[in-house]
Amino acid sequence: MPVNLEAPIKDELSPISGVKLGITSAGIKTQDRPDLVLIELAEGTTTSAVYTQNAFCAAPVTLAKQHQEQHSPHFLLINSGNANAGTGEAGMQTAQMCCQSVAELSGLPAESVLPFSTGVIGQQLPIDKITQSMPAAYKNLAEDNWFDAAHSIMTTDIVAKAMSTQIEIDGKTITITGMAKGSGMIRPDMATMLSYIATDAAVEQSVLDDILLRSVAQSFNRISVDGDTSTNDACVLVATAKADNSEISVIDSLDAQNLYQAVAEVSQFLAHAIVRDGEGATKFIAIEVEQGQDNEECRQVAYTIAHSPLVKTALFASDPNWGRILAAVGRSGLSNFDLTKVAIYLDDVCIVDHGEPASSYTEDQGQRVMDQDEITIKVQLGRGLADDTVWTCDFSYDYVKINAEYRT
Amino acid sequence: MPVNLEAPIKDELSPISGVKLGITSAGIKTQDRPDLVLIELAEGTTTSAVYTQNAFCAAPVTLAKQHQEQHSPHFLLINSGNANAGTGEAGMQTAQMCCQSVAELSGLPAESVLPFSTGVIGQQLPIDKITQSMPAAYKNLAEDNWFDAAHSIMTTDIVAKAMSTQIEIDGKTITITGMAKGSGMIRPDMATMLSYIATDAAVEQSVLDDILLRSVAQSFNRISVDGDTSTNDACVLVATAKADNSEISVIDSLDAQNLYQAVAEVSQFLAHAIVRDGEGATKFIAIEVEQGQDNEECRQVAYTIAHSPLVKTALFASDPNWGRILAAVGRSGLSNFDLTKVAIYLDDVCIVDHGEPASSYTEDQGQRVMDQDEITIKVQLGRGLADDTVWTCDFSYDYVKINAEYRT
Repeated sequence: MPVNLEAPIKDELSPISGVKLGITSAGIKTQDRPDLVLIELAEGTTTSAVYTQNAFCAAPVTLAKQHQEQHSPHFLLINSGNANAGTGEAGMQTAQMCCQSVAELSGLPAESVLPFSTGVIGQQLPIDKITQSMPAAYKNLAEDNWFDAAHSIMTTDIVAKAMSTQIEIDGKTITITGMAKGSGMIRPDMATMLSYIATDAAVEQSVLDDILLRSVAQSFNRISVDGDTSTNDACVLVATAKADNSEISVIDSLDAQNLYQAVAEVSQFLAHAIVRDGEGATKFIAIEVEQGQDNEECRQVAYTIAHSPLVKTALFASDPNWGRILAAVGRSGLSNFDLTKVAIYLDDVCIVDHGEPASSYTEDQGQRVMDQDEITIKVQLGRGLADDTVWTCDFSYDYVKINAEYRT
Repeated sequence: MPVNLEAPIKDELSPISGVKLGITSAGIKTQDRPDLVLIELAEGTTTSAVYTQNAFCAAPVTLAKQHQEQHSPHFLLINSGNANAGTGEAGMQTAQMCCQSVAELSGLPAESVLPFSTGVIGQQLPIDKITQSMPAAYKNLAEDNWFDAAHSIMTTDIVAKAMSTQIEIDGKTITITGMAKGSGMIRPDMATMLSYIATDAAVEQSVLDDILLRSVAQSFNRISVDGDTSTNDACVLVATAKADNSEISVIDSLDAQNLYQAVAEVSQFLAHAIVRDGEGATKFIAIEVEQGQDNEECRQVAYTIAHSPLVKTALFASDPNWGRILAAVGRSGLSNFDLTKVAIYLDDVCIVDHGEPASSYTEDQGQRVMDQDEITIKVQLGRGLADDTVWTCDFSYDYVKINAEYRT
C-alpha cells in the first residue's frame, strides 16, 4: 500500500482558467474505466515540456516533440493502458491518427495536439476505439475535471496524484494545479512518467522553460523506484495568462522566483507521491548525500544506494543491516575515495563515523529507525561542499508480484 | 531452487598434490555446521589472488593484500558465517588473531596466512570460537577434502560449487580443481565472492597472474545476481609445481595458453554455478551483446539489462514482455546511438529488427523461449565488431524472502 499518501480531494483541486479537461472510457486495456484525457489550452497559453532521455522513446514522444516545433500547442491528449512504445512506423501512424481525430473535432491543425501514452510497451494502440471515443472526451471538456483526469491517467498507480497551490504575484492570485501518474519503470531522466502542471499566470516562454527545467531537476529527476527509465516520460507545464498579472519575462526576477518555488512545490509533491505509490512500496526513503565534491558525485552515491536490491529488501524487512548501505557506498565508484572521512546516518542515528562503525551505535537505535515507514539515509563524504537528495522506496514481495503479473 | 546445477560428486573432485584442506565447525553463525577451512600450500607453491574493488573492503581483504606483499603464502584461512566487514580497527585485529593462531600451530609466520571471510557484514568475528577450533582444522588437513571444503564455505548457497579437470602439458598430466561460494551480493568487480582454484602445474608467478586475470575477466567478472559488489570478494589461484612439468614461464607459450583454457573452464563453471544458485533464481540468463564499438559498451548494455528489475521479474514470470528489454537497451547511455541498426533476439527468435518490432515475431514464439529455464538475450548494436557476454538470473519472490529474512 502507498506510504502515507492520501488521494486528492476533489474540492481541493483548483481549476485553472484557460485549461479544460475532457475524460472518457475508450476501453484501451480494460472496459469501463476512464483511460482517455483531452486537455484544451486557451489561446495565448505558453507551454513547456520535457521528455524521456531513453533512446528507445515512444512514438507519441517523438511526435509530440515534432508538433511542438511546428505549432503552438492547443491540446494535450493522454491515453493510459498502452504506451505505444516499441511499435515502429505503425505506432507513429496511430499517434498521428489520434491527433488527427482531435483536429477534426476542433477545426485546429493536428500539429496543435501533443500526444502522450502510458501503459504496456510493445503493443499497437487500438486506434479505432480511441477515435470513436474522442467526441465524448471533446464534449466533456470542463475546467473542474482535474480530479477525474488524475484518475484516468493511472496505470499501476494505486492512488491518484494531484495538488493545487496559490501564490500572489503582481497583486494577483496565481493558481497552480498539477497531476502525475507513475509507480513502476520510474527513474526519470530529464522528465517523469507523465505529469501535467498548469498555472493561470502570464509567463514568457523562456522563463517558463527555465522554471520547468529547474523544478523537474529538484523533483522528478531525483526519484527512483526501480532504476528503469521509461520510454514514455513527459512533463508539461502550461501557463494560460488568465490571471491578469504582467507577463513574467525576466528569469531572475522575484516574480519568476516565486512562481518557480510554487511550481517546484507541486512538482516535488507529485514526485514524492510517485515514490510513495511505488510498486509494492511499504516505505518512503530519502537518501541525502552531503560533503561531496560536486552534485553529480552526490547523486552517484545516492542512486547506488537507491538501486541496491539488498538495501531495498533490508528496508522492506525493517532490518538495520547497515552493512549493505556501507557496501553500496563502497561500490559507487568515486575516485580517490578516502573512507576515513565517511559518516553514515539512519535519521539521527550515526552508524558509521570516520569510515568505521560508530562506537555509540546500538542495534536498538538502528531498529527504532528502521521500524518507521519514512526513513532518511544520510551519507557525509567529507570531501567537499556539494549535496543532493534522491527519494526512493523499498523492495517487497508485492514488487515482484506486480511486475510478474503485469500483463496477465 | 538452483537452475540446472548439480552438487559436485566427491569422487569426481581430484586432489591437488601439494594442497591440503582442513575443515571444522567453529560455530561462527550457527552450531554444528562446518564453517572454518584451512588450506595448506606446499613449499614451492606460486599464488595469485585478486580482490574486491569495493572501497569499503573487509578487514581480511586488507590484511590478505598486506600479507601477500610481505611473505609467500603457505596457508589460506576461510570462515563463513561472518564477513568481518565494516568492523573497523577491531576487525583488523581479529583478522590478525586468526592468522596468528595458524602461525602458532604451524611454526610459520602469521604473514604466510591469507585470511578470507564471508557472511553477515558489520558484526565482529567471534575470535575465541575460531582460535579454539583452529587445532581441529589443522589436524584435519588432507588432500582429499575439497568436497567438504566446498560445503564449508557456503552461506546462502543452496548447492556447493566445485569441479576438476585435467590436461596434458609437457608430457605430464596436470590437474586443476576449484571451488567457489556465492549466491547474493554478486556483481564481482576484479574478483568474485570467494573462489579457490589449485593446480599441480609448475608456473612462473607472472604467467600465473596473467592466467588468473584473464580467467576472472571471462567468468567471475561477467556475472551479476543483484548488481551489488561485495566487500569480501576474492579469487585465488595456486600452482604447486608437483606435476613435474618444466616451469611455464612464457605468457604467450602454448603451455600457458593450454593451462589458461583449463583454468578459464573451471572459473566459468564456478561463475555460472554462482548465477544458477543466485538467490531465488529460477532461470539462468546469458546476455550477449554484439556489434559494439568496444567491449566496454557491450558490457554497459548487457549490465543495464541484467540489472533491470523489470526485465528480471518478467523473466521470472516467463512473460515475453520484450518492451522491458528494449527500454533497458534504450536507457543504457550509449552516445550517438542509432536505433535503426539495433536487433534483439530471445534465443533464435528475432523480436526487434532495425530498431522496430520484427514483422516475423509472434507472441507464441516469445512465449516458447520464455518458458525455458535457460535463455539467451542477444542484442546487436550495429556499430562495430566488439562483443561481450554477461550471465545473470531472474528476480523472484524468493529473492525478496531470502534478503528480507537474511539476518533473522
